[in-house]
Amino acid sequence: MLSNKINLEQKYSKFNKHWSPRIIAEMNNYQFKLAKIKGEFIWHDHKDTDETFIVIEGEMTLKFRKSEVKLSKGEMYVVPKGVEHKPCSKNECKILVIEPRGVINTGDIIGELTINEDVWI
Amino acid sequence: MLSNKINLEQKYSKFNKHWSPRIIAEMNNYQFKLAKIKGEFIWHDHKDTDETFIVIEGEMTLKFRKSEVKLSKGEMYVVPKGVEHKPCSKNECKILVIEPRGVINTGDIIGELTINEDVWI
Repeated sequence: MLSNKINLEQKYSKFNKHWSPRIIAEMNNYQFKLAKIKGEFIWHDHKDTDETFIVIEGEMTLKFRKSEVKLSKGEMYVVPKGVEHKPCSKNECKILVIEPRGVINTGDIIGELTINEDVWI
Repeated sequence: MLSNKINLEQKYSKFNKHWSPRIIAEMNNYQFKLAKIKGEFIWHDHKDTDETFIVIEGEMTLKFRKSEVKLSKGEMYVVPKGVEHKPCSKNECKILVIEPRGVINTGDIIGELTINEDVWI
């Protein structure tokens, strides 16, 4: 059964909440998630998996404990598993996150920003 | 060990050959590959894995045996495993392909267009 194509801009128009990733596609057991981010997220890591960030619009910073990487539209970064990171963005930034199904956005740090359920758009 | 960020446009400037995917990143056992495509590829499928296409610049068509999907910049499609497909593009199109390490670009159809080695840029 073939699905419909996915238009990123159209999908972004369906939500506004920051730090609230929405699933748009699955490839095997991996998920593609769109997020709008603004401000500072929390420090966390993912013990069992790498995590890919692609900037679709705007600018963001991935802070690490001893360095940081600034990403603009058209740039990507793969955060290795087990590496603590803190996504930040002064202004709203639109990102595409790719990671295995079941990954919790805040890692082991369960709190207000934790998203526990799969939300598809 | 943290790597450098990846700028897609910068990576595209490093090669011109059509239908010759170049690896730019790995996430666990998955690879991100850039390709420039023009003309018609061959019919093939991937028996064991889905395959993701994201259009970075231009337009392409994914032909299936009984339908087709036109994709423009900012659009993506996940081809399910086992589904025959034929990527085509009238004019040059820049795409990002995501799939597990070791997937052969032409599936079981080994021929002139088959890329057997990992080429990183």
